[in-house]
Amino acid sequence: MSDPALQSVAVVDLLALLAYGELRAFDQMAADARLAPDLHRRAVLSEMAAAEIVNYRRLAARLADLGADAESAMRPFVPALESYHDQTGPRDWLEALTKAYVGDGIADDFYHEVALHLEAPDRELVLDVLHDTRYADFAATEIRQAIATDPKVANRLSMWARRLVGEGLSQAQRVAVERPSLAMLLVGAVSDSDAIASLFKRLTSAHTARMTVVGLNN
Amino acid sequence: MSDPALQSVAVVDLLALLAYGELRAFDQMAADARLAPDLHRRAVLSEMAAAEIVNYRRLAARLADLGADAESAMRPFVPALESYHDQTGPRDWLEALTKAYVGDGIADDFYHEVALHLEAPDRELVLDVLHDTRYADFAATEIRQAIATDPKVANRLSMWARRLVGEGLSQAQRVAVERPSLAMLLVGAVSDSDAIASLFKRLTSAHTARMTVVGLNN
Repeated sequence: MSDPALQSVAVVDLLALLAYGELRAFDQMAADARLAPDLHRRAVLSEMAAAEIVNYRRLAARLADLGADAESAMRPFVPALESYHDQTGPRDWLEALTKAYVGDGIADDFYHEVALHLEAPDRELVLDVLHDTRYADFAATEIRQAIATDPKVANRLSMWARRLVGEGLSQAQRVAVERPSLAMLLVGAVSDSDAIASLFKRLTSAHTARMTVVGLNN
Repeated sequence: MSDPALQSVAVVDLLALLAYGELRAFDQMAADARLAPDLHRRAVLSEMAAAEIVNYRRLAARLADLGADAESAMRPFVPALESYHDQTGPRDWLEALTKAYVGDGIADDFYHEVALHLEAPDRELVLDVLHDTRYADFAATEIRQAIATDPKVANRLSMWARRLVGEGLSQAQRVAVERPSLAMLLVGAVSDSDAIASLFKRLTSAHTARMTVVGLNN
């Protein structure tokens, strides 16, 4: 994207999308923590939730630096993120962990790709607010152990993960249609259709690898 | 309390009570944040919730240092804290803020008194995990503004605050009966009945002052 004004609208959109994503993920994880089988595991998911708020605060501060009101900037993204979470409310602890593992994994890969086309300090900020890998490691260990204990779990969680990806893509598409400047941030960065295809291939491969490593299948 | 073994049981109890208090308050505040009238206020309550988890982690780490399993140590306090929160689920934003303001205020004053009779490093830890005053300031400002807009709110919130205090005292009594070593930590520190009376007087005065400052009455 060569137009600086359009670029700056898109950056505000991107940071606001991330910010509301953190705020909404906080809610969801905080509630999901009650699904934990014991207090130790509950505390870990609560900590994962709390980390989202620390990131939210950084994003809101940057939005203020850019002269944007965080509330107004986030509002356009509320419906898509509400829909995603409303459609994918976990029914148990393993669904909650799989959601954190699969959903955050894809989202982080995507934001990582977008960040590489941003300038400082937004590039560093977006990379910084991606999820801490120790939480993914915790979720992966829990999922693997559950499958080892009861192999039937793999099938149920694989289906759940496909539903998460489907809902996520559907809402991502909605955001792209409603916020063209945000879509252009990626399309502008990814200059031709081969590059877009290769981006999706990278995202898909990483997702498949994440699924395989915990014993789930696409 | 002069018996070191009993003292150390009581300290583990105290830290575990605080730890589960933080974990449960996190849940409650995270859920209450959805009652906020806008995204900015929702984010502030979410941040208050997240701060509880940071404190939880410090308490759990100290319990581990003392050779205690956080989960087992916290378990005896689950019923009292669940009861308190189940009986005092806020129905709206102002009830949620009043609960944070009044309930955390009294709890902090109480833990502050207890901490003064602990030794390092537990004394500093307990003082450190008390609530940040900027959250109390935020809640106080919101309550005052709501009363200025609609004076009838004062009566409703005053009644709500009395209910919070009643439920809190009832559960505190339950904990004292079930965990005598914890009660002795305070009684041992507060050596005679005059001292106990004066402690309760200090707690009550501070509570009344907090109520008055936001326009609520006892």
